Amino acid sequence: MKIEKPSIPKGTRDFGPEKMLKRQFILNTIRNVFEKFGYLPLETPAMENLSVLTGKYGAEGDQLLFKILNSGDFLSNVKENDIQGGSKSLTPMISEKGLRYDLTVPFARYVVMNQHDITFPFKRYQIQPVWRADRPQRGRYREFYQCDADVVGTDSLICEAEIILMIKEVMKNLGLNDFTIKVNNRKLLTAITNLIGEQGKEAIFCVAIDKIDKIGREKVEEELSGNGFSKEAIQKLNPFFDINGPNTEILNTLEKLLKDSALGNSGIIELRQVFEYLKALGSGENHVELDLTLARGLSYYTGIILEVRANKSSITSSITGGGRYDNLTSVFGLEGVSGVGFSFGVDRIYDVMEDLDIFPKEYEASTKVLLLNFDPISFKEALEVLTKLRTAQVKCEIYPDAVKIKKQMTYADKKRIPFVLMIGENEIKEGKYQLKNMTTGEQNELGLEEIIDFLSN
Amino acid sequence: MKIEKPSIPKGTRDFGPEKMLKRQFILNTIRNVFEKFGYLPLETPAMENLSVLTGKYGAEGDQLLFKILNSGDFLSNVKENDIQGGSKSLTPMISEKGLRYDLTVPFARYVVMNQHDITFPFKRYQIQPVWRADRPQRGRYREFYQCDADVVGTDSLICEAEIILMIKEVMKNLGLNDFTIKVNNRKLLTAITNLIGEQGKEAIFCVAIDKIDKIGREKVEEELSGNGFSKEAIQKLNPFFDINGPNTEILNTLEKLLKDSALGNSGIIELRQVFEYLKALGSGENHVELDLTLARGLSYYTGIILEVRANKSSITSSITGGGRYDNLTSVFGLEGVSGVGFSFGVDRIYDVMEDLDIFPKEYEASTKVLLLNFDPISFKEALEVLTKLRTAQVKCEIYPDAVKIKKQMTYADKKRIPFVLMIGENEIKEGKYQLKNMTTGEQNELGLEEIIDFLSN
Repeated sequence: MKIEKPSIPKGTRDFGPEKMLKRQFILNTIRNVFEKFGYLPLETPAMENLSVLTGKYGAEGDQLLFKILNSGDFLSNVKENDIQGGSKSLTPMISEKGLRYDLTVPFARYVVMNQHDITFPFKRYQIQPVWRADRPQRGRYREFYQCDADVVGTDSLICEAEIILMIKEVMKNLGLNDFTIKVNNRKLLTAITNLIGEQGKEAIFCVAIDKIDKIGREKVEEELSGNGFSKEAIQKLNPFFDINGPNTEILNTLEKLLKDSALGNSGIIELRQVFEYLKALGSGENHVELDLTLARGLSYYTGIILEVRANKSSITSSITGGGRYDNLTSVFGLEGVSGVGFSFGVDRIYDVMEDLDIFPKEYEASTKVLLLNFDPISFKEALEVLTKLRTAQVKCEIYPDAVKIKKQMTYADKKRIPFVLMIGENEIKEGKYQLKNMTTGEQNELGLEEIIDFLSN
Repeated sequence: MKIEKPSIPKGTRDFGPEKMLKRQFILNTIRNVFEKFGYLPLETPAMENLSVLTGKYGAEGDQLLFKILNSGDFLSNVKENDIQGGSKSLTPMISEKGLRYDLTVPFARYVVMNQHDITFPFKRYQIQPVWRADRPQRGRYREFYQCDADVVGTDSLICEAEIILMIKEVMKNLGLNDFTIKVNNRKLLTAITNLIGEQGKEAIFCVAIDKIDKIGREKVEEELSGNGFSKEAIQKLNPFFDINGPNTEILNTLEKLLKDSALGNSGIIELRQVFEYLKALGSGENHVELDLTLARGLSYYTGIILEVRANKSSITSSITGGGRYDNLTSVFGLEGVSGVGFSFGVDRIYDVMEDLDIFPKEYEASTKVLLLNFDPISFKEALEVLTKLRTAQVKCEIYPDAVKIKKQMTYADKKRIPFVLMIGENEIKEGKYQLKNMTTGEQNELGLEEIIDFLSN
């Protein structure tokens, strides 16, 4: 039998222990904050019926769905001309299921299917992988985790304020202290589009304005012009482009510029309310920047939107984003489910933290101390020590084979185990063991109680 | 547009918050014990190349693999007679990837691909879903989690002893106190097959003997006879069937019966060594029963095998199983990677715990206290309290809308929030708030410090 060298599908990744510990640090940090704010977990199946997924992500999205071949004799009901029609016409005949493309559509599906059992407002978080048949490239994968939290069934702006609080707490707990939360309100963008006389072209306006950071104001104006915005309209944008200063000042200026727009006013009131809540919650507006050019791609946002970037990293794309929507579930026939949600980009956060080198050097999850294996007699003593350490909830292990000490040390080193405990013949006689700090090389002779005390702190 | 009622694929499940909290309790308990014993996490992609998966699970397993349709124009290279050949011949032309069927093959693939970077002994655990295109039925799903831990690259029997320790600790931490860990050694089964003169028929013997609990001794003998075992051979089994008593006694009897078998002897020595290690580790043999009829299906086990059952549940199938194998990776061309592993059946454990009604009533993860929302003035005060509670790491939330108190109470009830905090006009005046225990109905007027003290314990 010829044995092929095994490989994994392109765009997918194995996460070995070292990467996993770092990823778990990020995911646990996020999960703990979600739960601290009353969000509870939901998990949905990896496979969804294609009837649920198709048509929800645009024509391009439909192309990027991974489709599962029907089980058994999938050709049994296929006719000659289904095949003649090519891949596109054959697909629905031989595939009924696809892999989850995001967590929003499965969430909407779940809410619709369980609408009579759910107590609203429904605060759920969901941390699961999604799959996209995208062309793999640096930083873009075919399988990656999403971390979403949404609350549906309430219009209260306390939700928006708490989302900002959660973001701040996650960033602080990750050690990511230099970041900016940009906020805006879709109502303002619509009001501005109306004011400049380009009613109904909000989508085009959002797409163009969103790129201002990357391509600059001039190119944005060109794009708008190319998309049929009149010269006058573009000129009328000037005072908005020129707005600057702290959030309150921006809101004051906007209030004058949009004084005739009910929608604009409502957008301003919402932002003011969120800032007020932030103050009442003792957090205030630090890290928070009102940015009128923030638009975010997804068309379903209708209220406040936000986006987070790390400031000192070479990775400049956003690491968190979200916003309020009017209608999560109408696509499945349930109207009036409004809410607000946001999502952490785990892969981006991972890359930023690597880039800034801010991962903690020790991870909760990994072994705290390795007991060396000298010979059968000391091994037996070591087993007793092992049990006592574990009773004290110290993460520990013993090297299973009595191989050369150098090899056992290398094992501790590679596994980043911070301490090594030596229990040899002499140590047993004296009832004191050698504890070596693998980082500093420092070595101390300590009694068992001292060791347990030290390691369990 | 006609809107179809959404559904999920048969054999798959949504896990809403209540189920998720229970599942997380199980998974966290297992994960914590794995990590306490020095096992570190690994995650592999949901999709594997079919070249990796095919042929690893027998012909039936190949049928049960979920296959992913190639992206893009998957028919472009397909010729007329590939289609004429039917589903079977067409499949490899239009599908290159499949969903993970278990965690063992991806682990073996990972070890082979990373053999030069891994420090052996390699202790890894993996908790991820797997997919099987099985006919769905009660207790059998098309998507379910597996929880595996394996250590490869050592023959030390301390690993087997520690696995038994881990099982005991997981069961204790789950509150599953009445359970039996059955152990056996494949070497004994081979030695017995040889002794009765049926060399090479160990597989048949194992399959038959494994069913003795379900079908009884007589039917097992019938099955052996039907599979060509001689009358004399079956008669020679009698002394083995008759073995009884505590583990040590069984081993003593076996020693006599198998005195001429080097393999049998080696199996006995291994079991004795594991029992000795258990004693040295302070755990001993409670819960552990040597059972010669335990065989376990998987053919790759070569040493000690084990299986766990809950004793007082109506669910009698095993909730944990594992064993030692000689060769994990030879199928991918890497010889000599031996190890021992075991796996918790999360769905089974969940069912057993539901059946015995032993899930803890309160979950770490869920909100500890809901702050009621009376009116804008008390709302502002409540926001301050909320912040103080969160600073003390108390999981809490405020009802976002000032709706009827009854509705807010129902929310707390449905979400199983154990306490509700009322901050009304009077309470603000007096600086004391009403804390209600939702289980007992008891209500106390307490100062903020008292409340924080009470809830953060």
